[in-house]
Amino acid sequence: MERPHNFSAGPCILPLEVFEKASQSVIDLDNSGLSILEISHRSTAFVGIIEKARELALQHLNLQDKGYKALFLQGGASMQFLMTAYNLLEKKAGYLDTGTWASNAIKEANNFGKTEVLASSKSSNYNYIPKDFLVPEGLDYLHYTSNNTIYGTQMKTFPKKENTPLVCDMSSDIFSRQLDYSQFDLIYAGAQKNMGPAGATLIVVKEDILGKVSRAIPSMMDYQLMIKKESMFNTPPVFSIYVSMLNLEWLSRNGGVPSIEKKNKAKADLIYSEIDRNPLFKGFTALEDRSMMNATFSLKDEQLGPKFDKLWKASHINGLNGHRSVGGYRASMYNALTLDSVKVLVDVMKNFEKTA
Amino acid sequence: MERPHNFSAGPCILPLEVFEKASQSVIDLDNSGLSILEISHRSTAFVGIIEKARELALQHLNLQDKGYKALFLQGGASMQFLMTAYNLLEKKAGYLDTGTWASNAIKEANNFGKTEVLASSKSSNYNYIPKDFLVPEGLDYLHYTSNNTIYGTQMKTFPKKENTPLVCDMSSDIFSRQLDYSQFDLIYAGAQKNMGPAGATLIVVKEDILGKVSRAIPSMMDYQLMIKKESMFNTPPVFSIYVSMLNLEWLSRNGGVPSIEKKNKAKADLIYSEIDRNPLFKGFTALEDRSMMNATFSLKDEQLGPKFDKLWKASHINGLNGHRSVGGYRASMYNALTLDSVKVLVDVMKNFEKTA
Repeated sequence: MERPHNFSAGPCILPLEVFEKASQSVIDLDNSGLSILEISHRSTAFVGIIEKARELALQHLNLQDKGYKALFLQGGASMQFLMTAYNLLEKKAGYLDTGTWASNAIKEANNFGKTEVLASSKSSNYNYIPKDFLVPEGLDYLHYTSNNTIYGTQMKTFPKKENTPLVCDMSSDIFSRQLDYSQFDLIYAGAQKNMGPAGATLIVVKEDILGKVSRAIPSMMDYQLMIKKESMFNTPPVFSIYVSMLNLEWLSRNGGVPSIEKKNKAKADLIYSEIDRNPLFKGFTALEDRSMMNATFSLKDEQLGPKFDKLWKASHINGLNGHRSVGGYRASMYNALTLDSVKVLVDVMKNFEKTA
Repeated sequence: MERPHNFSAGPCILPLEVFEKASQSVIDLDNSGLSILEISHRSTAFVGIIEKARELALQHLNLQDKGYKALFLQGGASMQFLMTAYNLLEKKAGYLDTGTWASNAIKEANNFGKTEVLASSKSSNYNYIPKDFLVPEGLDYLHYTSNNTIYGTQMKTFPKKENTPLVCDMSSDIFSRQLDYSQFDLIYAGAQKNMGPAGATLIVVKEDILGKVSRAIPSMMDYQLMIKKESMFNTPPVFSIYVSMLNLEWLSRNGGVPSIEKKNKAKADLIYSEIDRNPLFKGFTALEDRSMMNATFSLKDEQLGPKFDKLWKASHINGLNGHRSVGGYRASMYNALTLDSVKVLVDVMKNFEKTA
């Protein structure tokens, strides 16, 4: 059976070979006779898996031996909105408001202290990344969202302030591009885009920023405790971590982040070229802020929608509808999506131009 | 390949037919051409899955149409230690201290208000369930742990107090026995014993106990918000919920809780009879508090340990070592473990008696 071209915004496509190995391990993990779903999280097998996942995560970000720890927790980025504030917010933190999730992060942090919104693109429905903002002195931390999945914008540079820890939600573009990741003090990401299946959350944190707030932190919210317990204070999400490890191994076999970045750039160039060339379509975001992961666009004439929808669906394309906050279309092109899938979409757009 | 007899305390054995269907769906969910790991949580397919899981959970507990809602969240029981207190603890709550996890629940609640430990069996290493305790008036709620996985004790009755909501951690015995579940106002359970794979947590809560505390509750901690968003405030743990649904369907096909209780009782009777009969072994807990899920026992002569270990391992038995807090052995006999597996273990014990 032909697999659909899956442009879903997340949970999203992972490599077929990862699905195949994961499928096999649900029956029998590495000839143990046991399913990955029935082994103890304290077993030698699983301890090996989580250690490997940790090692690969740090390696792909070039953050080994630089004072960072990698954690695999539960709850997604939304739980991190809470945990970052619990662990780091004493008086005031600075946030850049670049979308729904950035805005949610601010809302949750307000439960724990003051937040200063340094800049916001809300009034233009988040179609660009604010750039000319000042970062005041004395913030407990500075918080960015590197890629805004819903709107299709992506930060290319990350203004820093000396002595202010930099926190970044990278849920939708981690492991997709080369960056100096050591400019960040805390990175978090829900697994379900470029890391693995929904249900695990990666946190990469520089240990020396922790332990500085005066409040008592409940165990499940405490990064220091999670580090001490090696992400196993309680039962971790075994399967999601296992598949994340498989996927990070796949990334290693395929040249790592430098290589995947080139492929992601080729995919993004292809779709954006067509959006700009094709007279029937228009892009949603500012050109300089376009995301390599999520291309948002719409038809200039919305009445042509049903006809276009019929075409792409007939070409086995899945998950192209835009988020309700933006409308139109969104082509999510995470690491595992092939250039061929983007070519199929672009061909559909070209054919649509001829026949519309 | 012969599958091991998996007595693991959790994550634990699930039915082979559940593994097989889950394995297939990791490649192709119901002939969609898409993996269960790559579909959107907003897709018709997944919305159908989570609705079915909710319905089955309430049905197996006989709690449909009685004012309860079922939620599937992340973080395990340890996150519920925190959430119950966030949502329900205004002044003081009463806890029964029956083991490590009960004790952890108390510790986390202390972050939010006062707790009164109504009784504790800690001084005898939690080998029994305290019974003659008084429940004072005016508690915000009363908290029990129905089954203590580590120690192998299980509550058979649940003393109530009028006008005091009853909260119960049923992580290790939910769906295993018939009870009047409507005596509880809030039940929670990590998935990884009788429900599904690690990574999902079931919460069944009577709506009318919520909304009564004065504190602000962060979004991810707020039961009312999670109910309103139907467990999809953010991306849920799709795969763990899917496999839980498959497992709850398996339970339906096999006669539901009344039928599985009979099987669980037969398994427990078999192992406990042998522990009591065999002169080489002794049980760990008080007879009347023995758990149907986890039988804890040890060798009277610990020096015989290596010889016994060799025997059960040779019989393809997995996961029989006791928790480090208790030592000895623990036979966890969750719903999916067959009577035949228990027979194999009992035969090993009998043979050991002959040869030791």
